[in-house]
Formats: sequence, structure tokens, C-alpha cells
Amino acid sequence: MTSTDAILQGDRLALARLLTQIENESLEGLATLAALYPHTGKAHLVGITGAPGTGKSTLVNQLAHHLRKRPTPGEDTPPRVGIVAVDPSSPFSGGAILGDRIRMRDLAGDPGVFIRSMASRGALGGLARATAAVGLALDAAGFQIILIETVGAGQAEVDIASNAHTTIVIEAPRMGDAIQANKAGILEIADILVVNKADIPGADNTVATLRMTLEMAGSANASMAVADRVGAGGDVSWEIPVLETVATKGEGIPELVDTLYAHKEYLTTSGGMELREGRRVRSQMESLLRDKLVDRFLEGQADGRFDDAVQMVLEREQSPAQAIEELLKGEKS
Amino acid sequence: MTSTDAILQGDRLALARLLTQIENESLEGLATLAALYPHTGKAHLVGITGAPGTGKSTLVNQLAHHLRKRPTPGEDTPPRVGIVAVDPSSPFSGGAILGDRIRMRDLAGDPGVFIRSMASRGALGGLARATAAVGLALDAAGFQIILIETVGAGQAEVDIASNAHTTIVIEAPRMGDAIQANKAGILEIADILVVNKADIPGADNTVATLRMTLEMAGSANASMAVADRVGAGGDVSWEIPVLETVATKGEGIPELVDTLYAHKEYLTTSGGMELREGRRVRSQMESLLRDKLVDRFLEGQADGRFDDAVQMVLEREQSPAQAIEELLKGEKS
Repeated sequence: MTSTDAILQGDRLALARLLTQIENESLEGLATLAALYPHTGKAHLVGITGAPGTGKSTLVNQLAHHLRKRPTPGEDTPPRVGIVAVDPSSPFSGGAILGDRIRMRDLAGDPGVFIRSMASRGALGGLARATAAVGLALDAAGFQIILIETVGAGQAEVDIASNAHTTIVIEAPRMGDAIQANKAGILEIADILVVNKADIPGADNTVATLRMTLEMAGSANASMAVADRVGAGGDVSWEIPVLETVATKGEGIPELVDTLYAHKEYLTTSGGMELREGRRVRSQMESLLRDKLVDRFLEGQADGRFDDAVQMVLEREQSPAQAIEELLKGEKS
Repeated sequence: MTSTDAILQGDRLALARLLTQIENESLEGLATLAALYPHTGKAHLVGITGAPGTGKSTLVNQLAHHLRKRPTPGEDTPPRVGIVAVDPSSPFSGGAILGDRIRMRDLAGDPGVFIRSMASRGALGGLARATAAVGLALDAAGFQIILIETVGAGQAEVDIASNAHTTIVIEAPRMGDAIQANKAGILEIADILVVNKADIPGADNTVATLRMTLEMAGSANASMAVADRVGAGGDVSWEIPVLETVATKGEGIPELVDTLYAHKEYLTTSGGMELREGRRVRSQMESLLRDKLVDRFLEGQADGRFDDAVQMVLEREQSPAQAIEELLKGEKS
């Protein structure tokens, strides 16, 4: 049996092997992924993001647990759930996230759950691309909901937003102006806001501040932003809800499951799903194109012309832009 | 007088105009920047990063204020200080950071300080590139210390690390495991660690945790990592210090100034400065090359072949990698 068939038939070992191949960018992995591609496009991709200390991993853990407890709306069985835990904050080390793995151990016995930790090696672009590829593999392997968890409050969030159908942003109760500073980013990527650790003092304040921020932006900006994101002309709209959870106790998680399904339903009826899918594929392909073009260019420069250009810039003989210009001219002629 | 001359002679208006041109990626701006390039390479680039809520802006403000209070070591006058406040958390809106501007108002009367806020428009790559260009412009304009402040706990930090000579990471007192989650990233990019808001309860814990983390990693990993970063063979080494500050009251800032100068001195004597400069220029040029190659490729595809490829991928007829492969083959022949 080919590894493609094995994965389509639910062979976990074959899937795990493919994911490793994807991480190593092996040609065999790419070939398998290409063969699997026609079988993808069925999964609901859910990005989950938040700063360190918000209890993200515990929440993802609990969310998977609760998703497995009841049938998908309209189906007889619970969804199969894939979890991809990404740590872009450690780009130089390339190690996996031991803490997450330990915390997720209690899900490991469930054959309807598949967990994969990924750490960045090199550029964030590479990580985003690998994450997208892992998502495709899990999709082909029949996981209907794929939870993609990332640490971070910067570009990683945005990359998730462009790679997920639904984005959940997790906040923890925080001091005053902290939320303020982050609100623009939140408004622009969150479909669902969760205030975790809702039982610690100050949580009410955080919830109130977030609701107020959404409301203030709401009537004008936010609804426009949402309309823009799901395409004009739809008369359905989505108001970003602010949920409260205590993930360590499982509190608020059933409501989060409901909201997640509601957003899926909303995306389907509003046409937002196709729009996001289109954006997702386009950004994925742009990133691939970028990398391939650079690879191809540098391969043709085996005589070290790029290194020479770097040296000239270091010696202030040319500006970076000039040097690149020269380099490209040289290649063209 | 050309704008190049005006900037070299300290004309703030000409400088401001150039920075706007850089942000807008105008050709005129690029030309001026190229003309200024031979006059760069003198500034000490300092990256300052930390999650929202750590009091970063106040600290940067205070740091600039204290830097201006006393002469640079070995000089008669205080350094001229440039501040670039970057907000990558708001990539879709492109607005400037009003809060930062207001907070920095009290520096605005000082002709030895120049402040610029930047928000991302589009990709982080674009922002990193624009930030690097703004740094060059301030360098040419004679600012000896350039403080580059970014929000974020993800890729943004890393981009700063590869674009700065010295990186300061700011933490605020936080709950237990929050620090843990982030420590790998911190160890890998920080030259100086600052626990701000050191007067609020829990600060001692945060400082102790950070010191312990550094110590545990210290004897083995960290010193290796540092050695790797500044080049092998040097018998000078740098131990990442953990400083405590209360930026709102200016407490601990003089010590931070001392530490900053000490790190500069260390970089100069260890050869680390050249190493970092080399890395910085290389990464900047790689990013430029990347963008230029994509632009050039897409220009040659005016018949919409890229759009067609996206469509085929959306219809699952080809995988993204296959589609890009085809696209590149087509261009070659």
C-alpha cells in the first residue's frame, strides 16, 4: 500500500511519517502531499492564538476534549480533531514544545485526536508554510476540525488569520492599558474572543474593556471590517463574541464549542468560507513562489555573486537596494 | 541644496520627508537613501521589544531622556537619539500609534531626539525592510543611538534581533508559567533583560525566575549561544544581565544606560559588532532580493497566469507546490 493510501485509510503511523517529511521538506513528503491534495478541503481550520501565559494550551486541550464529547451538528459522530501546536517564538532552537506535549497527554489515548508539535526552523515563512502543509495532511487524513495553536502576539497571529477559517484569540485578565495596546490587532483577526482564567480577580474588567472596545469600533469600523472580510453583499453578519472560560476546570468550553460551530455555519451561509479559502490558498502560493524564486536565483549564482554583493554593501560601496538591482541586472542579460 | 545634503546637515524637515518617502516606497526616497548610504554605519542600533503591557514605550521614552543627560563615554556631548516605534500588531490598518506619540511628547522639544512611529502595511517583511531603511536614514542624519521599539512576542522580535546591534527584552511581572513559555525566545535574542514595573508585587519572583532560567541555561547553552552569536575565538564574553526598572519613575534607567554602553563596548572589543553587522546586512539583502524577484516574476505574468494557478489549486486540480512548479517551468522556457 502506498503511503498516500495508508494515510487516506487512517494509518496514524503513515501520517506521522508524512508530517516529519513535511517538516524536513523532503521530496517524498511533497510528492505524497501532492497526491493527497485532491482529498483535502473538507476540514474546518481553526487558528487559536494568544500571548504566553493566557493558558492557551490548556484551553486547546479542553476544546478538543469537548469537541469529542458530542456529535458534529447534523452528523451522528463527533468530529475527528487534529491539533497542531506551533511555537514561532523559538526560531533558532528548533526544538518541540515539551510542555504542550505533556499537557496534551490525556488526549493521546483517543484515536479521534491527533497531536503534532512544531517549532520554527529558520524563517517564519517556512513555519507558516509547513503549518499549512501539516493542515492539508490532517485534512486528507480525515480530521474534520484542525486546531492550529500558536504562541505570540505579532505576525504569527496574522499568518494564522490568513491560514484559518476561524480565528480564536485568547486573552487573560491583564492590567489596564495592556489591552488597549493590542486592540487593533485583535479586532482585525479575531472571529471569537476568549477571556481565559475568568475566575481570577480583574477578569471582569478585561471582559468589559474588550466588549467596550468592540462596541465602540462596532457600529462603524468593526462591522465594515467583518463585511470586508466575508465579502460585501451578504446580509448575514458576525458579531465578535467575548466568551469567558476557566480552561483548567473546563468552564465555558461547551459554550466555546457552540460558538465555533455557529461561526462555521455563518461562514457557510455568508459565502465567507470560499472567500477565506481563496485568500488562504493565494497567500500560501505567494509564499511558495517567493521561496522558489529565491532558491532558483541563488542556485544560478554558484560563483558567489550574492556574497560579493553583501561584501560591497558592508563596505558601504553600494546601498542594499543598489546591490540587489545590479545582481538582478546581471542575471537578466 | 539637495535633500541628501540637507539631511546630512541635520535638516529635520528633509529627514521627515525622506522617512515618509521610505514608508511609501517612493523611487525618490530610494535614490536619496542610496546617496546617503556611504554616510551610514556609525550608529548603535538598539532593538527594544516586549509584550503589550510591559511599559515599553514609557521605558524607551525614559531611556532616551537619560541618554541625553550625559555625554557618550569618551565624548564631550550626549548622543543624538533616534526613536523608531514599530507596531507590527496592526498590519491591516496602517495607522500610526497615537498613544506612543502622546507619551513621547515630552521629548519632542529636544533637537537631539527624533521620533518616528511606523505601522505595518502589508507583510512583516515590508515592515522590517522599511524599519531598516529608516534606521539607515537616521544613521546618516547623525543620530548616534537609534532605539527601535516593537510590540510583540513573536517573529517581530527576531527581525529586530537580526537588525540591531543590541537587543533589550522587556518583561513585566507576570504569573508563574508565563515566563517559562517564553524563555527560549528570550535567551536567544536578548542581550539585556529588563523587568519593568519592578515595584508591583510579584516582581521579585519574575526577576528570580529569569535569573534562574539564565543560570540553568548559562553554563552550557547560553554561553555557547552567545559565543556563537559574537563569533568564536573571542575570550571576552557577555552575561545577559537582568535589570529592574520602574520606568514611570525613572528608576533603574541610569543603570540601563550604563549597561547599554557596556554592551556596545563589549561588541566593539569582541569583534561581535562586525559579525552582527554582517548578519544584519545579509538578512536585509535577502529580504530585498526576495521581494524584487517576486515583483519581477509577477510583472512578466501580466496575462494572469498566477491567478489561473490559484484557481486550479482552489479547484483541487493541483497542489500549491505543483502549481508553482508549473508556473516556474513556463517562465523558464
